[in-house]
Amino acid sequence: MSSLSIEKRRPLKIVGLAGSVRATSTNKGFLNAVIEMRSVTCLSSILTWRRKVPEVVLQFRRKVDEADAVIFASPEYNYSLPPALKNAIDWASRPPNVWAGKAAAVMSAAGGSGGKRSQYHLRQIGVCLDLHFINKPEVFVNTHEGPLPKFDTNGDLIDEEIRARVRQLLRSLHAFAIRLSSS
Amino acid sequence: MSSLSIEKRRPLKIVGLAGSVRATSTNKGFLNAVIEMRSVTCLSSILTWRRKVPEVVLQFRRKVDEADAVIFASPEYNYSLPPALKNAIDWASRPPNVWAGKAAAVMSAAGGSGGKRSQYHLRQIGVCLDLHFINKPEVFVNTHEGPLPKFDTNGDLIDEEIRARVRQLLRSLHAFAIRLSSS
Amino acid sequence: MSSLSIEKRRPLKIVGLAGSVRATSTNKGFLNAVIEMRSVTCLSSILTWRRKVPEVVLQFRRKVDEADAVIFASPEYNYSLPPALKNAIDWASRPPNVWAGKAAAVMSAAGGSGGKRSQYHLRQIGVCLDLHFINKPEVFVNTHEGPLPKFDTNGDLIDEEIRARVRQLLRSLHAFAIRLSSS
Amino acid sequence: MSSLSIEKRRPLKIVGLAGSVRATSTNKGFLNAVIEMRSVTCLSSILTWRRKVPEVVLQFRRKVDEADAVIFASPEYNYSLPPALKNAIDWASRPPNVWAGKAAAVMSAAGGSGGKRSQYHLRQIGVCLDLHFINKPEVFVNTHEGPLPKFDTNGDLIDEEIRARVRQLLRSLHAFAIRLSSS
Repeated sequence: MSSLSIEKRRPLKIVGLAGSVRATSTNKGFLNAVIEMRSVTCLSSILTWRRKVPEVVLQFRRKVDEADAVIFASPEYNYSLPPALKNAIDWASRPPNVWAGKAAAVMSAAGGSGGKRSQYHLRQIGVCLDLHFINKPEVFVNTHEGPLPKFDTNGDLIDEEIRARVRQLLRSLHAFAIRLSSS
Repeated sequence: MSSLSIEKRRPLKIVGLAGSVRATSTNKGFLNAVIEMRSVTCLSSILTWRRKVPEVVLQFRRKVDEADAVIFASPEYNYSLPPALKNAIDWASRPPNVWAGKAAAVMSAAGGSGGKRSQYHLRQIGVCLDLHFINKPEVFVNTHEGPLPKFDTNGDLIDEEIRARVRQLLRSLHAFAIRLSSS
Repeated sequence: MSSLSIEKRRPLKIVGLAGSVRATSTNKGFLNAVIEMRSVTCLSSILTWRRKVPEVVLQFRRKVDEADAVIFASPEYNYSLPPALKNAIDWASRPPNVWAGKAAAVMSAAGGSGGKRSQYHLRQIGVCLDLHFINKPEVFVNTHEGPLPKFDTNGDLIDEEIRARVRQLLRSLHAFAIRLSSS
Repeated sequence: MSSLSIEKRRPLKIVGLAGSVRATSTNKGFLNAVIEMRSVTCLSSILTWRRKVPEVVLQFRRKVDEADAVIFASPEYNYSLPPALKNAIDWASRPPNVWAGKAAAVMSAAGGSGGKRSQYHLRQIGVCLDLHFINKPEVFVNTHEGPLPKFDTNGDLIDEEIRARVRQLLRSLHAFAIRLSSS
């Protein structure tokens, strides 16, 4: 992150990263809701894991590097992170670690606990990456709960209460990134 | 796991799973040390993550399903699991979850804390998988520590003290699997 | 735990430990539901923390030592364990650690996530104590959720669905303790 | 924390909190090393847990409230926090939560892993408290390791390399608190 104040000079740059690799996923829809509210560059977490560094990884790293803040939107697989998300994280952490010093937020749409368990794993990973996660609000969406669907069949977020919480998360991330950017 | 007692009727079946995808890795060497001591089937954690279930995944699931116990030997990436290991875990957890009810143990060779942080993530994942991890001994090997290398250039474990601890882990896992197998 | 099989020779001994120190707490009510269903000795977690080992601690340790299995019923304080519960755990872990080798289960009634975060902390503590926690079912009760109260004003559990899950937890703990008790 | 910039107007106020309740503890010595380097107010974590809010708790809360940043120095008990430390944390979190928004750092002197496991528990608790922990450096001191003692018989820190890391932690905490204090 730039050591100069980002306050009024230029708009905050945020990248969004969806943990799911499926084409229509609720967490992509979740991220789309963020993108509608604010200019956020959405990154694909589908990166190879086995070979030499390919061009797509270099592009991914460049986008992360240019950002002031990061939003993760991810499902939970077996009480932890989806492997594709972890792989994208690991690629961008290779020296020089491009996550270092950035503000971050996480939200998750998942069954059961709405992704709580995986979010705390991600926060621990963040200590290694030197990401500064906001503490509040925490956004967990239980996709199986409630009388009405929260996402429509396209994966778009249609629940107004959750949209309000996402807006709050964005404001909190924005304010935190501004605080961190002061020299 | 078979509901019948495995005690004296047949030898315990153990599968070993290395978290690293590199050809020469210390954790593969770690697992080789186990294999020398006891008959353990070593599984590759290199499975695809994006497509339909391929034959290699079915084979992997079959091997896990036939085992009484599992040994994970894994490095730590950014304070958590390597994505390839998590991916292999997730594939085998698809219904029907073939991990369910098995005894398990974990050992890790890594820098820094010797893999402590990732082992507790794996244990939490194990609650979801319904794996029963042994508690003791915990085997963490800091590969950067000490005056002498613990693994040779082939990745083979040459440290006698660590070999003794691996033997202890194997005995503990064996005894625990026997206890769990009682009908 | 006795090294002899407990199967049919004698009934399983279970101790229950409530994490809350308040006289009327939902988690004590939670534990009372267990006690109604089955003979469980309820232990108080109110132990001193500063002085020499007093008689009340010795009694507590003796009760834990005589048990085959342990049930924790605890609220969550600031995403982790109540200090009184942790203190009781620590007293009983002093050499000789009287928790070692026992089967264990945990259930929690709490706001928000129903105690999920603290349960995973307790499970990590269990690795050190050498407690063998059952994996399923996990019992989390969100006391703030739903149209009807789950506990009455005395703290008694009145929700039938939750009572059914508690029964399932007891059965699972019982079966696991039997498996572990085989010599 | 004050919403005004603390930068040059007044010196940063830091409180230190030792997790151990013993009179001569390595973690108190650890904190003493911090106090020698910089003006830090040391708080006692010995607070009652059972009764109404006593004067000592009010004083404790006031000191935390007035601070810009917090340093925890704590041993690890059974892979998690000492109950006395958790109790002090819980008292100060009662509404209004006086930890909210402050910068924080943690260091631990302990056996085995040097307190790693408990530090990640503390970090998760920090999400609830709305504490902003620095990520680097992480300071773990294994008190049992090495040819020479790191603390003398008074509990004072005598290891120069560790003193250098503590200085680095203080600098990092200071810089982070300044960044967070910008309006």
